[in-house]
Amino acid sequence: MKILIVGGVAGGMSAATRLRRLMEDAEIIVFDKGPYVSFANCGLPYHVSGEIAERSSLLVQTPERLKARFNLDVRPESEVLSIDPENKSIEVQTKTETYTESYDKLILSPGAKPFVPPMTGLDQAENVFTLRSIPDLDQIMAQLEGKTAGVATVIGAGFIGLEMAENLAKKGLEVTLIEKAPHVLPPLDQEMAAFVEAELVKQGITVITGQSAQAFEDKGKTLVLEDGRRLSSDVTILSVGVQPENGLAQSAGLELGLRGGILVDEQYQTSQEDIYAVGDAVVVKQQITGEDALIALASPANRQGRQVADVIAGLPAQNKGSIGTAIVRVFDMVAASTGLSERVARQTFDKVAVVHTSGNDHAGYYPGATTITLKLIFNPETGAIYGAQAVGQKGVDKRIDILATAIKAGLTIEDLPELEFTYAPPFGSAKDPVNMIGYAAMNLAQGLSHNVQWYDLSDELAKGKVLLDVRNPGELTAGRFPNAIAIPLDDLRNRLGELDKSQSYIVSCHSGLRSYVAERILKQAGFEVANLDGAYALYQMVKPEDLIYD
Amino acid sequence: MKILIVGGVAGGMSAATRLRRLMEDAEIIVFDKGPYVSFANCGLPYHVSGEIAERSSLLVQTPERLKARFNLDVRPESEVLSIDPENKSIEVQTKTETYTESYDKLILSPGAKPFVPPMTGLDQAENVFTLRSIPDLDQIMAQLEGKTAGVATVIGAGFIGLEMAENLAKKGLEVTLIEKAPHVLPPLDQEMAAFVEAELVKQGITVITGQSAQAFEDKGKTLVLEDGRRLSSDVTILSVGVQPENGLAQSAGLELGLRGGILVDEQYQTSQEDIYAVGDAVVVKQQITGEDALIALASPANRQGRQVADVIAGLPAQNKGSIGTAIVRVFDMVAASTGLSERVARQTFDKVAVVHTSGNDHAGYYPGATTITLKLIFNPETGAIYGAQAVGQKGVDKRIDILATAIKAGLTIEDLPELEFTYAPPFGSAKDPVNMIGYAAMNLAQGLSHNVQWYDLSDELAKGKVLLDVRNPGELTAGRFPNAIAIPLDDLRNRLGELDKSQSYIVSCHSGLRSYVAERILKQAGFEVANLDGAYALYQMVKPEDLIYD
Repeated sequence: MKILIVGGVAGGMSAATRLRRLMEDAEIIVFDKGPYVSFANCGLPYHVSGEIAERSSLLVQTPERLKARFNLDVRPESEVLSIDPENKSIEVQTKTETYTESYDKLILSPGAKPFVPPMTGLDQAENVFTLRSIPDLDQIMAQLEGKTAGVATVIGAGFIGLEMAENLAKKGLEVTLIEKAPHVLPPLDQEMAAFVEAELVKQGITVITGQSAQAFEDKGKTLVLEDGRRLSSDVTILSVGVQPENGLAQSAGLELGLRGGILVDEQYQTSQEDIYAVGDAVVVKQQITGEDALIALASPANRQGRQVADVIAGLPAQNKGSIGTAIVRVFDMVAASTGLSERVARQTFDKVAVVHTSGNDHAGYYPGATTITLKLIFNPETGAIYGAQAVGQKGVDKRIDILATAIKAGLTIEDLPELEFTYAPPFGSAKDPVNMIGYAAMNLAQGLSHNVQWYDLSDELAKGKVLLDVRNPGELTAGRFPNAIAIPLDDLRNRLGELDKSQSYIVSCHSGLRSYVAERILKQAGFEVANLDGAYALYQMVKPEDLIYD
Repeated sequence: MKILIVGGVAGGMSAATRLRRLMEDAEIIVFDKGPYVSFANCGLPYHVSGEIAERSSLLVQTPERLKARFNLDVRPESEVLSIDPENKSIEVQTKTETYTESYDKLILSPGAKPFVPPMTGLDQAENVFTLRSIPDLDQIMAQLEGKTAGVATVIGAGFIGLEMAENLAKKGLEVTLIEKAPHVLPPLDQEMAAFVEAELVKQGITVITGQSAQAFEDKGKTLVLEDGRRLSSDVTILSVGVQPENGLAQSAGLELGLRGGILVDEQYQTSQEDIYAVGDAVVVKQQITGEDALIALASPANRQGRQVADVIAGLPAQNKGSIGTAIVRVFDMVAASTGLSERVARQTFDKVAVVHTSGNDHAGYYPGATTITLKLIFNPETGAIYGAQAVGQKGVDKRIDILATAIKAGLTIEDLPELEFTYAPPFGSAKDPVNMIGYAAMNLAQGLSHNVQWYDLSDELAKGKVLLDVRNPGELTAGRFPNAIAIPLDDLRNRLGELDKSQSYIVSCHSGLRSYVAERILKQAGFEVANLDGAYALYQMVKPEDLIYD
């Protein structure tokens, strides 16, 4: 059997190597239009600062090694121009020739390409780059050659944009980050992204949100924002998102779906027999919503590549869809998410509840514990988990990986406290943050607790509800809510007489633990009361301008 | 309602605080025979070296603070002598008096006590300690006062024994660790524990396995082993395991089960109405085997304490059992396990398969990647996961926590590759070790691969099978199997003629990745072949004496 694979990175190369392990006698040819295959796509930003010191570290495999080990015929700098599904052949262009190659099976793994919005002057700009490949990186490195100062602009504050901002800053450049959405890291919800924005600002990055870049002037040296502001830039990175690399599929008449993604069935077959597609370019099922989605992530791409090999070799395999799990380190802060954001969940489902907790990455009594702020998005009636987000310095990856596993397994909020994790003081707590957020969600679902989200607080107070702050006096001096009643939790039982049962209260503390205890005291004493979810610490992160500082 | 709780640490204190949040008007009294409640049990060993510098860090709560916050009546140094189930009362002894307290509901959370084997001369020994409480720790600290040298002996190489060995060594003592079982860390399987033993030896600990301590002489200054060896010891820690603290339950006529554990139903009720029990002292269901078990771990104890409060308050709650998840850091090495070991799984189930993989804690191209050796124990027919173990320097907790979640959720080996984890170079790989071990297990289940375990190798070779080592020549000089044929993987396709199809082969490389590729080449070429699971790296760790070193 002769199998051709277009695209030699994650999905394509996983398919090729698995195919070889299953079909020793197949002829397997891998085409890539770029000069490198199997490179470390996700590592590119880290070479900019030198954190990954050697460019060669990014080149995971070479055609020679892939030949020796897997007997693969890997052809870089070979662009597949067209497919002839009728005659089962493709047309390939190299630097020196154009030729035809026939196939029994064809796998497309073209990936995604940077989305480049229409911007005046972009074609004249000489210092504007996207980052998706080694040649992209080489261009950026050449532009930065010898520079340890200067001004860099990153347009788009998604995962790659944040990584580029950090790495450019670590190289010594003055970095401005521009995001069209109202907050950085748009896949996350605003209050969680606020932790990342605070870290960026703390590390000296200028963050401009709610603004798009409209035009370039002076060959790119000047950038014009939506509001007319003009920024100087020595080097500009465009990272406003990606879109399916669908040109070849489209010209071959393959059916396309959502935003141009290639449509495939559960066995990765396109609309054309014997043509398969995997990776960032295909439309997948978002497992939580059941809806079509484009999920451009390395992990599903690798899985799909392996599965399509199984399909071709006659083994059972099925694309069950993806939930989307992602992480980014931004200096000393880490932010991660899995499944749906609150925003998307509320757009999709009727019954959505949300809870935030804050807990230590490991036992508080063991040195070096840091805080993880965790958010769970769920259905309060069925307990189904829609998504989770976390920010913190350490242990964020572990908690989101656990919750991603829980979502994939169809666990509910009631299952989270049942989970038994490794616990020794350097690694966790007897009640892990994942257990605790399960308890917190169950308290809401069972009606033991009611919460108010940060974005509803001012409306609720405007309706006449009263805010009760149960922190200690010493904590209030660092910042407090205007017009809140202050009664420390430990005095509350003795001072219930100061409260009015005809009033409705919202209770807050620092992180939400004490306010929940206060809520339970008040509820059981007959008060109408809700808990400010995430309490002062979360509110202060996302709406600091509402607060009073002495 | 008047609720009495016996035992003020994990289970008891979780019950007390949850009860207060649910039943503001209940009278809740917590008795503890020791001077401290709610202390950091699992942190005790770390104070020995000063890694947890302040003793006060271990005292998480005080009776005064628990009174102020939760209106709990906490009575330390109050030993409950007896229970009168008929009259629903208990007898309490303090330093100054004995009194009776009545109850509506009684919760027993007595915990576990150190198992002390019969040893001659133990009663005269003045330097032999167990470690379960703050007073135990104080005694040890007093014995070590001013000592930065000397000889310490730890009897029992379980989790606490290993932590004590490390912390005593870090304090500057010369440490000998004695374990009766054939290897350290008996809950893990031998080849996984071998990594821990190697680390102990590397760090200067003397490890003696397969030996018990039989007697003490010279007031404990001399220790006599089973084989007659005499060891000097300035301080000796006895950590050979724990047993249920069941004295009170037994004298009250409560039904006991496995090894004296208190029998409770799924709502934590003992054989006596209105008397409940939780924590290390109760018999639980091992969720994987469905059999009775004693699982003395902080995480289940805390969960049970909270659940019994729910039961008493009329909320739905059920003890679903435990799987057992544990971790230990031993100097620069971390070892963890969840579910059943291979040993226990083979004792319990007919169909048991095992696979080992080794992978990086994060992307290999990003600095600082370290190796995780992961083991999965599963049913090759149903795919059910029985257990997992991991050793490595970093990221071990995360992988075992994910696999613990998978086991709790009833996921099978086929689900593991589907899991979508956070991936950015500092945190993981596009194909995480958990995904990879799922693939490896599926390869076995699907018959694409067959493996031979390290303990079967010599028997298999004795039967006439031939070992084929596919490492490169340069790797062989560091150590190799006797009588193995050596053909580097990349030469194998061209050198198949050197092999004999009438032979049966076992193939090995360094870590098992290349040998699997070789196995597939050979299988497809018509050879009978199996893969040495874990390959040279694992074998060399557990049976170094079988190998040749130049």
